[in-house]
Amino acid sequence: MTKAPTVDDVARAAGVSRQTVSNVLNAPDIVRAATRERVQAVIDDLGYRPHTAARQLRTRRSSTIGVHLDPYAGGISGVVLDRFVHALTERASERGMRMLLYAARTPEEEIARMGELLDGGEIDATIVTGTFHGDPRTGWLTARALPFVSFGRPWGEDDVAAPAHLWVDVDGAAGTAASTRHALGAAGPRIAFLGWPAGSGTGDERERGWRETMTAHGLAAPRWTVEEHVPAARAVVADALAAGAEVDAIVCASDSLAIGAHLAAVAADRHDLLVVGFDNTPAVEALGISSVEQLPEKVAAGALDLLMGPTGSVVAPRPAASGSAHVLVEPRLIVR
Amino acid sequence: MTKAPTVDDVARAAGVSRQTVSNVLNAPDIVRAATRERVQAVIDDLGYRPHTAARQLRTRRSSTIGVHLDPYAGGISGVVLDRFVHALTERASERGMRMLLYAARTPEEEIARMGELLDGGEIDATIVTGTFHGDPRTGWLTARALPFVSFGRPWGEDDVAAPAHLWVDVDGAAGTAASTRHALGAAGPRIAFLGWPAGSGTGDERERGWRETMTAHGLAAPRWTVEEHVPAARAVVADALAAGAEVDAIVCASDSLAIGAHLAAVAADRHDLLVVGFDNTPAVEALGISSVEQLPEKVAAGALDLLMGPTGSVVAPRPAASGSAHVLVEPRLIVR
Repeated sequence: MTKAPTVDDVARAAGVSRQTVSNVLNAPDIVRAATRERVQAVIDDLGYRPHTAARQLRTRRSSTIGVHLDPYAGGISGVVLDRFVHALTERASERGMRMLLYAARTPEEEIARMGELLDGGEIDATIVTGTFHGDPRTGWLTARALPFVSFGRPWGEDDVAAPAHLWVDVDGAAGTAASTRHALGAAGPRIAFLGWPAGSGTGDERERGWRETMTAHGLAAPRWTVEEHVPAARAVVADALAAGAEVDAIVCASDSLAIGAHLAAVAADRHDLLVVGFDNTPAVEALGISSVEQLPEKVAAGALDLLMGPTGSVVAPRPAASGSAHVLVEPRLIVR
Repeated sequence: MTKAPTVDDVARAAGVSRQTVSNVLNAPDIVRAATRERVQAVIDDLGYRPHTAARQLRTRRSSTIGVHLDPYAGGISGVVLDRFVHALTERASERGMRMLLYAARTPEEEIARMGELLDGGEIDATIVTGTFHGDPRTGWLTARALPFVSFGRPWGEDDVAAPAHLWVDVDGAAGTAASTRHALGAAGPRIAFLGWPAGSGTGDERERGWRETMTAHGLAAPRWTVEEHVPAARAVVADALAAGAEVDAIVCASDSLAIGAHLAAVAADRHDLLVVGFDNTPAVEALGISSVEQLPEKVAAGALDLLMGPTGSVVAPRPAASGSAHVLVEPRLIVR
């Protein structure tokens, strides 16, 4: 049986990367003349034709990874997920993979879209974002043994030791622990925490980092909770300061909360009050507020490492591959 | 010759949308039982099998549109392009199309990627963003008669009357004209403009809206220029205020410039000084600064309308189709 030559065959025979073969086909001007001629000769020799759908049918690989893009919801911190998608696109491109976006408004719709794309051979794997307790998406993918990785841990008891599926996440507790240690050194011992109402995995992790650090230092301070909303956060902190709360710093679960706290501190003439955010968005950068940087680029690289394995050229279904079933990225405090 | 049945054949025979057929295949639980049974009967009747690559080979259509995603550059206003991509993904999904992302660091690399995807049949059309004077990407696509639309006008003499290609853009001059009229009514006659150095199409348009509105009212006021950078904008405005500049309001070419102007005004105790931004990003929303909203959702809908035409189901190569070759979206001032 004679198989049609692939771009990999051309690259191997010419001793160049897939990318260079593609450049010769599509942007010959940016390839050195000698290389171009060598690659072109191999293409002619092998009779390579670049139609992708034919290759997909033959290999049953689309070299494409799907990712769901939420409807734009506004807010300060949406930029973190967008940075993740930017980074995925770049890292995937370096590995000869593409990113396909799909829209869905509910987990059920997202399952329908993923099924359609995976069954149709349009994507080889998918990346699920924003996992939560009892997430039906990861359960469905796991039950069908479809290749995927989640940005967000499974939020079960065995997340780290025996995770239910491949996942990558940011260590939120490590982030707020770093914020709290910084505040202890820079501002004083009375470090309040401004977070979301208990019950969200992400929010509880961020609260834990502050709480355990304070406990380790034998300290206690108020913990305030509020929804993710600048004016609401501003009101909570303004009320606390007006009521005489004695705090040296406020560690926050997000940049929206930090901006609210910052505005309340400025309005109360508490220019000494240190505020630390979480997400390091352009908004806190503009205001000069310190914040925890999630490093979405590392998250994206981790997701692709998990999906594609160390060999790196093909996506294989490897749910919970042993020894490398998760990547926990340590975030970095940016002090301003 | 017998052709394999398509999802369109199933949808037509069952009297439902493509989306419903897909839901029956992938998420039967969300489809009403009666509909599910009717669709399933048609699928069985026709012997429909959903492998996409086969359909692509047959139809030479991938039902996929490409869009370039820049490397994440930080900054306040990147969110506008991200909102555009979110909206494209949703609108495309409603039309049964997918969005494929590709990375590129230079226009030449972007041309290579577009060529690869179009030649390989992986995308039917592409969307180019951030056009500029002498853009090699649009020239290359036009010369090869490949289907595309740009977010950003061609920036030539005949943009509107006889555009070189399909484009959609936001009317920047209309936006700053609205800001200027608002400031004249709300603050007073001395409305300064804070913009970028002359020479960028987008920046010059935004300056023009302010200038023409001031001229129409027989007014003049200072125009300051600075690079897109919050601290630089803050310094320019702080210097101007310290030097005794008499202004009632500052209309800005971007939210980054507006945040810089706002911080300078607050630091100089000029709480009366009205500042208006452009892009309506989460950062100015958090700070309570008025701003011009670009309506990226309308831009995305306009781009797909141009590419797909009024019939709406297939991408056809229609460079500069007569009568509907561009969409100019009027932005909306959000007053805070």
